[in-house]
Amino acid sequence: MRIVVDAMGSDQYPGPDVGGAVLAAREWGDEITLVGNEDLIQAELAKHVTSGLKLEIVGASEVIGMLDKPGESSQKKTDSSMHVGMSLVRAGQADGFVSAGNTGAVLAVALLQTLKRIRGVKRPALTAVFRNPTGYTIMADFGANADCRPEWLVQFGVMANQYAKLGLGIAEPRVALLSNGEEEGKGNSLVHDALPLMQAEKGFHFVGNMEPKEVLLGETDVIIHDGFTGNIMGKSLEAMGSMMSRLIREEIKASPISLVGGALASSAFQRVRKRVDPFEVGGAILLGVDGIVIIGHGRSNDVAVKNAIRQARQAIQGNVVEAIKSGF
Amino acid sequence: MRIVVDAMGSDQYPGPDVGGAVLAAREWGDEITLVGNEDLIQAELAKHVTSGLKLEIVGASEVIGMLDKPGESSQKKTDSSMHVGMSLVRAGQADGFVSAGNTGAVLAVALLQTLKRIRGVKRPALTAVFRNPTGYTIMADFGANADCRPEWLVQFGVMANQYAKLGLGIAEPRVALLSNGEEEGKGNSLVHDALPLMQAEKGFHFVGNMEPKEVLLGETDVIIHDGFTGNIMGKSLEAMGSMMSRLIREEIKASPISLVGGALASSAFQRVRKRVDPFEVGGAILLGVDGIVIIGHGRSNDVAVKNAIRQARQAIQGNVVEAIKSGF
Repeated sequence: MRIVVDAMGSDQYPGPDVGGAVLAAREWGDEITLVGNEDLIQAELAKHVTSGLKLEIVGASEVIGMLDKPGESSQKKTDSSMHVGMSLVRAGQADGFVSAGNTGAVLAVALLQTLKRIRGVKRPALTAVFRNPTGYTIMADFGANADCRPEWLVQFGVMANQYAKLGLGIAEPRVALLSNGEEEGKGNSLVHDALPLMQAEKGFHFVGNMEPKEVLLGETDVIIHDGFTGNIMGKSLEAMGSMMSRLIREEIKASPISLVGGALASSAFQRVRKRVDPFEVGGAILLGVDGIVIIGHGRSNDVAVKNAIRQARQAIQGNVVEAIKSGF
Repeated sequence: MRIVVDAMGSDQYPGPDVGGAVLAAREWGDEITLVGNEDLIQAELAKHVTSGLKLEIVGASEVIGMLDKPGESSQKKTDSSMHVGMSLVRAGQADGFVSAGNTGAVLAVALLQTLKRIRGVKRPALTAVFRNPTGYTIMADFGANADCRPEWLVQFGVMANQYAKLGLGIAEPRVALLSNGEEEGKGNSLVHDALPLMQAEKGFHFVGNMEPKEVLLGETDVIIHDGFTGNIMGKSLEAMGSMMSRLIREEIKASPISLVGGALASSAFQRVRKRVDPFEVGGAILLGVDGIVIIGHGRSNDVAVKNAIRQARQAIQGNVVEAIKSGF
């Protein structure tokens, strides 16, 4: 297995990107190709013990940054680490691509310049995977398509279902449609129109409309929504989680007694964070393009990049792209 | 001031509804009219000390329950407590109406059967008010209109701005548009189309597109969105808050040491709850109908009903309906 890692992806590139690649190469023994500025990558690799690891460097002269416009940069910076990295996957020289870079740019380069869409897929879906108290939940679409048509949502369901099964090992994934109420009459016009199509689809086990509360409790494995609503939901969950953690820290520090209490309860807080941490998974798979692409958070550290590489490994081992192709 | 309270509103009616009315009459000395089944209301009132309070009962023979369909029940149950109560406001015999009942039904009865829309208002907006760490945030629309047109969002901004000023006492409310990114290129087509209209509107101080995180931190006083997205965001915030509280309780109980820690830190947890409690405010005002209507949570207890009555008082004192009328 060979995985390409964008060395120029994360906010603090190439540190976390190279560090994560080293961790992954050490843990799993895969071949890892680092793409980007060769000097920078060499200098970064020199900080690690890399003997015996299957690490390779492929040069790319340009960098697409977080502030670059996706459409424009994907067209102009054709020797970027994203272009070079995904072209290796396209050419069959690598099995998957991982980047902690500009999400919109990865999407544009994958879709328009390199891997292209799988035949029959109308629109790709960006996923997000969060940890609920009992397992994982896959959100799709998380932002690739701000406006959606009902039939696209059905396709997101088909693709996310395959990923849940083959990439995350969920035996019989439940697929639900995000709505503001479980009753069939609830929802906006997109939900109204998508509901009968989702019910009629044979490609997944559909469990109906679902509200955020039940999604969060893990009552579905896959939740389907347009990219705008899904992004708002995901960001709301994350924002509320961070704010509560911050307020708890602040208020515990506000008195000596609660400070002692907080110290005694710190293991409990750590367990809570493990049970709801939205970052634990590492990255999001881009479904519907002809190759494995995992997009990590810009704020990734070494471990987060390693986790994103693990996601790529699992999707490659599960043959997710072939499974999706066979469904269309 | 006379406020009508729907005695048949809450999940546990008439207990919390009557109890809240008694608390309000005692605290502020207003005249309060309880509408609903007279025998039930009398029996409930007998549990309280009511001498000297200005409480009155008006009979209504029907009840619209939480499971009733809004459209159907608003047309058929024309002697419901909602119909009778809002007709009193319509006739000028009362200044505002408070119900902890079926939100969709209150909306339908207000809009189609009794108070009707203010001239010039294209669609009413349901609000939600949540406590952020530094003050209050008004969300509009919270679910009255699942699908919206760009110009409706502008009207929601005009109405919510008046309510923020006159009903909640925010001197110069900031108004923002909910989006999945602050940049102008972000958003779905509704946000794209609404943005220039919001920027051009003189009726409020517009601060641009805003993501959930910044909304939650209190960087705007009013956040505008379609009713579907707003409802999903609000429910996501609430769900995450409840889940974190629950997990913290569970994990603190999981070991004797953290249990002691949790007890010592309990005042800190209480302060956190005060700073982010989405329920503290009590109810949501329905903006754009020709009268003050406050809708409380079905799960309201006595204090929540009292708080909803306070919201009605403040909106009446602020002359919110007249202010909105003058803006159209």
